[in-house]
Parts: sequence; C-alpha cells; structure tokens
Amino acid sequence: MNLNIGVIKGDGIGPEIVTEAMKVLDQVGKTYGHTCDYTQLLMGGASIDVHGVPLTDETVAAAKSCDAVLMGSIGGDAKTSPWYQLEPSKRPEAGLLRIRKELNLFANLRPAVLYDELKGACPLKEEITKGGFDMMIMRELTGGLYFGERRTVEENGVMTAYDSLTYNEEEIRRIAKRGFDIAMKRRKKVTSVDKANVLDSSRLWRKVVEEVAKEYPKVTLEHMLVDNCAMQLVKDPKQFDVILTENMFGDILSDEASMVTGSIGMLASASLNETKFGLYEPSGGSAPDIAGKGIANPIATILSAAMMLRFSFDLDKEADAIEQAVSRVLKEGYRTIDIMSEGKQQVDTEKMGNLIAGYI
Amino acid sequence: MNLNIGVIKGDGIGPEIVTEAMKVLDQVGKTYGHTCDYTQLLMGGASIDVHGVPLTDETVAAAKSCDAVLMGSIGGDAKTSPWYQLEPSKRPEAGLLRIRKELNLFANLRPAVLYDELKGACPLKEEITKGGFDMMIMRELTGGLYFGERRTVEENGVMTAYDSLTYNEEEIRRIAKRGFDIAMKRRKKVTSVDKANVLDSSRLWRKVVEEVAKEYPKVTLEHMLVDNCAMQLVKDPKQFDVILTENMFGDILSDEASMVTGSIGMLASASLNETKFGLYEPSGGSAPDIAGKGIANPIATILSAAMMLRFSFDLDKEADAIEQAVSRVLKEGYRTIDIMSEGKQQVDTEKMGNLIAGYI
Ligand SMILES: CC(C)[C@H](C(=O)O)[C@@H](O)C(=O)O
Ligand SMILES: CC(C)[C@H](C(=O)O)[C@@H](O)C(=O)O
Repeated sequence: MNLNIGVIKGDGIGPEIVTEAMKVLDQVGKTYGHTCDYTQLLMGGASIDVHGVPLTDETVAAAKSCDAVLMGSIGGDAKTSPWYQLEPSKRPEAGLLRIRKELNLFANLRPAVLYDELKGACPLKEEITKGGFDMMIMRELTGGLYFGERRTVEENGVMTAYDSLTYNEEEIRRIAKRGFDIAMKRRKKVTSVDKANVLDSSRLWRKVVEEVAKEYPKVTLEHMLVDNCAMQLVKDPKQFDVILTENMFGDILSDEASMVTGSIGMLASASLNETKFGLYEPSGGSAPDIAGKGIANPIATILSAAMMLRFSFDLDKEADAIEQAVSRVLKEGYRTIDIMSEGKQQVDTEKMGNLIAGYI
Repeated sequence: MNLNIGVIKGDGIGPEIVTEAMKVLDQVGKTYGHTCDYTQLLMGGASIDVHGVPLTDETVAAAKSCDAVLMGSIGGDAKTSPWYQLEPSKRPEAGLLRIRKELNLFANLRPAVLYDELKGACPLKEEITKGGFDMMIMRELTGGLYFGERRTVEENGVMTAYDSLTYNEEEIRRIAKRGFDIAMKRRKKVTSVDKANVLDSSRLWRKVVEEVAKEYPKVTLEHMLVDNCAMQLVKDPKQFDVILTENMFGDILSDEASMVTGSIGMLASASLNETKFGLYEPSGGSAPDIAGKGIANPIATILSAAMMLRFSFDLDKEADAIEQAVSRVLKEGYRTIDIMSEGKQQVDTEKMGNLIAGYI
C-alpha cells in the first residue's frame, strides 16, 4: 500500500523526534511491503521564519491532499522567541488552531497510560496506581471557547474583553458518537465531563450525550462535573476508561491526565475528522530548552505514527508491531533522559529510534 | 466586641459541621471577651424545602445586614434528591451563585495546604511533597462564564447553546490587587493563570495583571497557561504561593489543588467583597452520603471561622488561637474518619469540635 503522509516537523524538538518516527515508519514499510511518500509541510514557527505566517493557504491545501499528517511540535519559548513579539493571531500556535478548523479535526484522542515499566516516574503513590491505568480522553477540538466570536472593546473608557462558547447538537452528537465508538473497543465506559450546573452549553452537551448513549446500550455512561473530574484524576485515575468532553475542559484535563502518568514523553495523540484523515502528534510540547541536543524522547511521536497506521490506514497489524517494539525496548531497559531511572540504560533520541526500528 | 454573624447551616453534613464551628466561636468569645450574635439564614436545599426557592430576597437582605456569614455546604445528591428535578435556576447551587453576585463576593480565597501530620493521605509521592506545600488560590468569583449571558435556541431545527465569558479591566484589577496584597503577606510570588494563547479575556487579564504588578515591586509575577498549571499542580505543587485566576479556571484548579493535599476536609475558604464582609465555608461539598451520621470532619468549617475572624473582624490573635488548637489536636493524634490512619485515635464530629474548643 502507498501511504501518502504529510509531515510537519515543526519547532523545538519537533524535527528530531519526527525523524525517528519516519525511520520507524520506513522500517514498517520494508517489513510489511508498503511505501511511505512524505510531503514536507511547514507550520508554526518554521513557517513564520519562511513565509511570515504560521500557516499558508498552500500548506492547508497540501495537507488536505495527504491521507494523514504526522507532526512534531509547534511553538517556542514565549519569553525569548521573536515569534511571540507578533500579535496572537500570527504566532506559531495560531497555525495549529487554524489547521484543526480547516481540516475539520473535531475529534482529539489523547491516551493517558501508566506504563508498568515507568511507574517510578508517576507522581502518584503506588497504592493509588497499583495495577496501572489506561484512559482515553476524547476532546472536542473545533468548537467551544476556542472558535467562538471574541473581541476587546473600550466601553466608557474601560476595556472589556468578550469570548463566547457555543455548541450545537450536531457538534456534540458527532464527538459523542466517536467517544462511544472508542469505548466499545475498550472497557465500555464513558465519563462525560461538563459544567452542567452552570453552563447552557453543558446542559445541551449532557442531553445530547444521553441521546447518543441510547444507541450504545452496552456502554455505561456517567456524567461528571469538570471540577470533580480534576480531583478524580488525582484521587483515582483507574476509574476512567473514556473521558468525553468539550474543547477547553479537554485541554485542561488531558494535560492533567498526561502529567498523572508521569511520562508525557510517551503519550501520543490523534486529531480526526469525519473521514479517515487525521493529524498525529505527541501530547507534549516543543521543549525549546532541549531542542537540538539529541536527547528528546521520540516515543510519543513514534506511537503517534502507530495511531496513524491504525486510524487513517487501517493497518492494525503494523500499528501493533510499533507498539510491541516500544514495549520491548522499554522492557530491555533503554530510556531517554526524561524517563531515566536507576539501573537503566540511557540512550539518545537517535539510538532510541534505531532500537525501536530494529524490532519491527 | 460584638460579632454579628449570619449562619447558613446548609444541606447534607452542613448543619453538623457548622454546629461545631459555632461551638469553637463561642469559646473564642468566652476566652477573649466577645459575643457572637448569630442570625440563622436559609439557603440551598434547606431554603427550597421551606420557601420553594434556593434563596429569597429576605435572606439576601438579612445576609447583607450581618458583618460576615459562616456557611456549611449546599446541595444534595443530584441522582436521588428531588431538588434536582427542578430546573437549573431553581436548584440549591443557584442560591450560592446568586448570593455571590448579590453580595459582590468577587474574591474567593482557597488555601491548599499539606499538613505535615496528614501527609499520609496525600496522593502524591513523598519525594514531590517533601517539606510540604502551602498555596493560596485567589479565584475571581463574580465574572466570567458563570455570569455571562447564556441562551439555548433552535436554529434551522438544530438546538444551539451559547455561554459568554466577559471581563473588564476593573474586574480584573480589583481581584489582581487582592492577589498581590495576599502575596505581600506570604512568600511574595503570584502565578497568574490564563489561556492567553486563545482567549481575548485572558489577554486582557494578563495585561491588567502586569499593570497591577508594577505597584508591587517586591512581588514576583509569573504567567502560566491553565493547561500547564493543571500539570504543575501535580508535578510540583511546592512552586506555588498565590495562584491568581478567573472564575472557571479557579473552580477547576482549586479543586485539583485541594485533592492534591489529600485532606479536603481540612480546607477552608473565604469569599470577600470590597468591604470587610465575607462568606466563609469549607472547600468540600455537602457529602449527602454521610450526612446525619456524625462522622463528618468539622475542621474545614472551624478553619473557615478562623478566616472570618481574621478577614472580617481583624481578630488575628483569635484566629491564631483556633489554628493552633487545630494543630494541637492533630498533633495529639485525633482524627475524623476521612483523615484517619494507623495508630491514630478516631473521633466523631462532635468530639472533634469539643477537643478544638477545649484548646482555645
Ligand atoms: C497550543 C494550544 C493552542 C493548544 C490548545 O490549547 O489546544 C495546546 O495546548 C494543545 O492542547 O494542543
Ligand atoms: C456548586 C458550584 C456552582 C460551585 C462553583 O462552580 O463555583 C462549586 O463548585 C464551588 O467551587 O464553589
């Protein structure tokens, strides 16, 4: 099969970690008889440097013509990078927000998994995490506060800023269905998170989620308020299977959940639209402080490539092969510095990529 | 001095825990020569049961005529209580939201402290919390998504819900000043939390907070994005002194921080307006599952009473006396069931109140 993959190397550690993921994909190609055709795309800071804007119309069109996009990370150090002298709509992150909307990537999947081999890095006490946890956050990605109308105006000499949060039934229904679909392949539990004691959008969210739940009688649905969910992620992360939530709550909770695992360098993500198309990227940021040092952990990006094979190309066997190779390398004790612990073997970014590719 | 205190016993465990706090206040009165005049006020479920609404105009007026209000907790079990058959604006929590607005309680202070004696209950590993942590969350409480216009309408056969998030300069300035004032009495660090890479209201927030910071050259200000803050609370809670943030982010982060301490039954809160008036309540909820059993932890409410003496009555010595009595009881090994651990002495709600009052 021919895989037509867009590649956004991005900023900071992006180029380093994407290089390793491409290496692993190429090895998958060799072993399983596929060819990967890569189209390099510029977004974020790298695009600002060349084109003056974080995302051009040409790049949007080129991305659309790919089957899927693999991405490193976007953005720099807000305190020192000249990109952050620009107005907000021209900064690196604006490219990310625009591509989500242009490609209609409404379903953002972020797994938060405690790897048995890495539980030393988990900030929670062992009695809480015994037996591990494995949840999937399904975050709505093209609505809510992120894409509502906003403005800042002077009223009677006082500056006032407005943002708005809108959801309609259809937007809620399509993300809810995705959440229940994923739950059917997992432990069949959906925790829908909202703030229905305050927000109209949350009350509509709850109503539509309940309607969708009727189509999935095998899935257990529970509702949880966002403030409570922020507590439960710390108190008892094992209780969660699929967390289904709107854009801003999903931003906050998915980052909290990723930190609860203690191994953010291991966490992949996928942003999907109604078709098989998806944008795949590590959950972590561009880590400008360690960029260019060759020490970043490429595993999150490599696992994002596995998600791409699974969701965009239906290549489950190949995705499994990558995930197993990652497990094996971890079991054998190889670690990048971010997940290093006593008695393990520290390796750099490239070596980690080579090891994983070697087990495909 | 005569203390004119409104008392909202509230729902669930509310009446039990408030009774103990009043006992402690009365003892403070005896020891230090004050009289406490209590005005009982109904709010939440208790008010619905009597008046059909969670807060009457008469109660608002009565609350305004007090110097301060001490509150238990509001609300019941959303799955089983008939209060939750009512439309949202008539449920118990609506009373809470209304009183915040009517009394202009814009500054919500929630301490999140790891008590040395209770660190066994902290969900975080000891290496992270060694030496303890002690932060104060300053949450804006009368603006943002909580009080924006909202509506749900049908548009071309599709239901659409709108919420809005508004802040003006003055609202931001007054809460920021409170945050810096508190920081001056603490470790002189303010972490202002926003989502300035997405929201106009957050960009205005950041700008005004920076202006206010200029008036406090001794305080170190740092800005943090809300998703990052949700991570940092788990990764390294020691880094925080004062967290300053808007209403919805504050709701989520203060609950996360309280769970990170592991002892939510110990955490007080204060909601203040421009004057000395304040509403004081425990951070935890009404815990309907254990209501009436006499096992709830009254300490959060007792410490809320101490905050009341400090902020509304300038009775610092008396507030110190309560806090020291609580420390002493903990050191001597007395525990309610929620904070119980091996080798300690389990006591009920009333006994805990008696012990603390006994040390005033
Ligand atoms: C960079 C930022 C705009 C983005 C978001 O808030 O969605 C990021 O935090 C993420 O979660 O992908
Ligand atoms: C009950 C609810 C409306 C309230 C809030 O969201 O403010 C509560 O969670 C709180 O934090 O006091």
